Amino acid sequence: MQGTRQPTPPSATAYTPSDRTVPTRSAQRASYDRELVHSILDEGHVCHLGFVRDGAPVVLPTLYCRVGERLYVHGSTGSRPLRMTGGETDPGLAVCLTVTHVDGLVLARSAFHHSINYRSVVVHGVARQVTDPEEKRTALDALVDQVVAGRSRDSRPADKKELAATAVIRLDLDEVSAKVRTGGVSDEPEDLSLPHWAGVVPVRVQYGTPLPDPGLAPGTELPDYLGTL
Amino acid sequence: MQGTRQPTPPSATAYTPSDRTVPTRSAQRASYDRELVHSILDEGHVCHLGFVRDGAPVVLPTLYCRVGERLYVHGSTGSRPLRMTGGETDPGLAVCLTVTHVDGLVLARSAFHHSINYRSVVVHGVARQVTDPEEKRTALDALVDQVVAGRSRDSRPADKKELAATAVIRLDLDEVSAKVRTGGVSDEPEDLSLPHWAGVVPVRVQYGTPLPDPGLAPGTELPDYLGTL
Repeated sequence: MQGTRQPTPPSATAYTPSDRTVPTRSAQRASYDRELVHSILDEGHVCHLGFVRDGAPVVLPTLYCRVGERLYVHGSTGSRPLRMTGGETDPGLAVCLTVTHVDGLVLARSAFHHSINYRSVVVHGVARQVTDPEEKRTALDALVDQVVAGRSRDSRPADKKELAATAVIRLDLDEVSAKVRTGGVSDEPEDLSLPHWAGVVPVRVQYGTPLPDPGLAPGTELPDYLGTL
Repeated sequence: MQGTRQPTPPSATAYTPSDRTVPTRSAQRASYDRELVHSILDEGHVCHLGFVRDGAPVVLPTLYCRVGERLYVHGSTGSRPLRMTGGETDPGLAVCLTVTHVDGLVLARSAFHHSINYRSVVVHGVARQVTDPEEKRTALDALVDQVVAGRSRDSRPADKKELAATAVIRLDLDEVSAKVRTGGVSDEPEDLSLPHWAGVVPVRVQYGTPLPDPGLAPGTELPDYLGTL
């Protein structure tokens, strides 16, 4: 392009970096790969949603889901962030949505090089309330499937009253980046002979044996999709 | 107090609720109990730190630790949030620091009542850089001990150069609340006879077998504090 500053066209395989998604530190850990971003998002149940209220930041944990290149968050129509998003014609609410998985504790010989292995995705954008009934239903199904894949087909869908009580907000995957730290310890060469144990303690999420509700209808068996968690 | 609006005095056992820490929804899940707040904070390694940059929210995962009624977060002196905090005499940076543990997937018969069992703490306040060398050392030790308790005594402390490259910011535990969802499914009475499995899938963090660095000094054994994770 020889010096012209045309915006990078959207790519099928990667998000376009922006000022906000290029980190000032550990830039080698940043990635814009769509597949990686999707896999990190799909593995989680709870995101941390940040927004600004009265000039100050607020960060709340909340359920989310991904449908293609859109994220959805839901909540009561009375909850604070959802009331701030307004309808489709409103300017929306500036948000930052972050999902993080901790994969390991990195114990270096030096205190300075202690770290965490992790995978995170940070999404910047403007959240807007979903007003289209079809999109809202799709998002609510996906939210249930983000709790356990396959679950939306095995539960009673929301009725009119429940739909009216639930607000869903949408955030497009556009300004987004992943950050990943993986691997072992990086100690200084002069510390390698120190007598301290060094290495990585793997961390993972473990799903336990499902605990049935005491009032299950007779004959209700554990569904297959819970056996594979 | 008969109608006077004196502020509630600080309590030894509970934080004082504020406009920001009283939720608009599910208020019965909120708690200001110090012991509960401390236990949730002490169990985590990574928080989600929110701040405002150019009017928009930013939420970043980062290591944190608790020392009494103070939280500390560290990072490179070049990182964005740390550069924004300035020194002790600066006005500081308004932040919201949130720690969340997911304890279970709550599968109701109705899509609407699907939920997550969780414990979270949300701290609002102003973060300031720590300039006192003694407090900085204490905080850095605590950060290493938040990765694994007991670890700071078994690693090489930061040297002068590392101390200079590391910024530590402090956030007082003052405007803080916990929120906890626990227990089973809450379905509507008319849904109880539906043929859908309902119950809770427990979720917990599992620490795997520690993976030693290949270059451990000869004779270095696995320390006791790693055997109890």
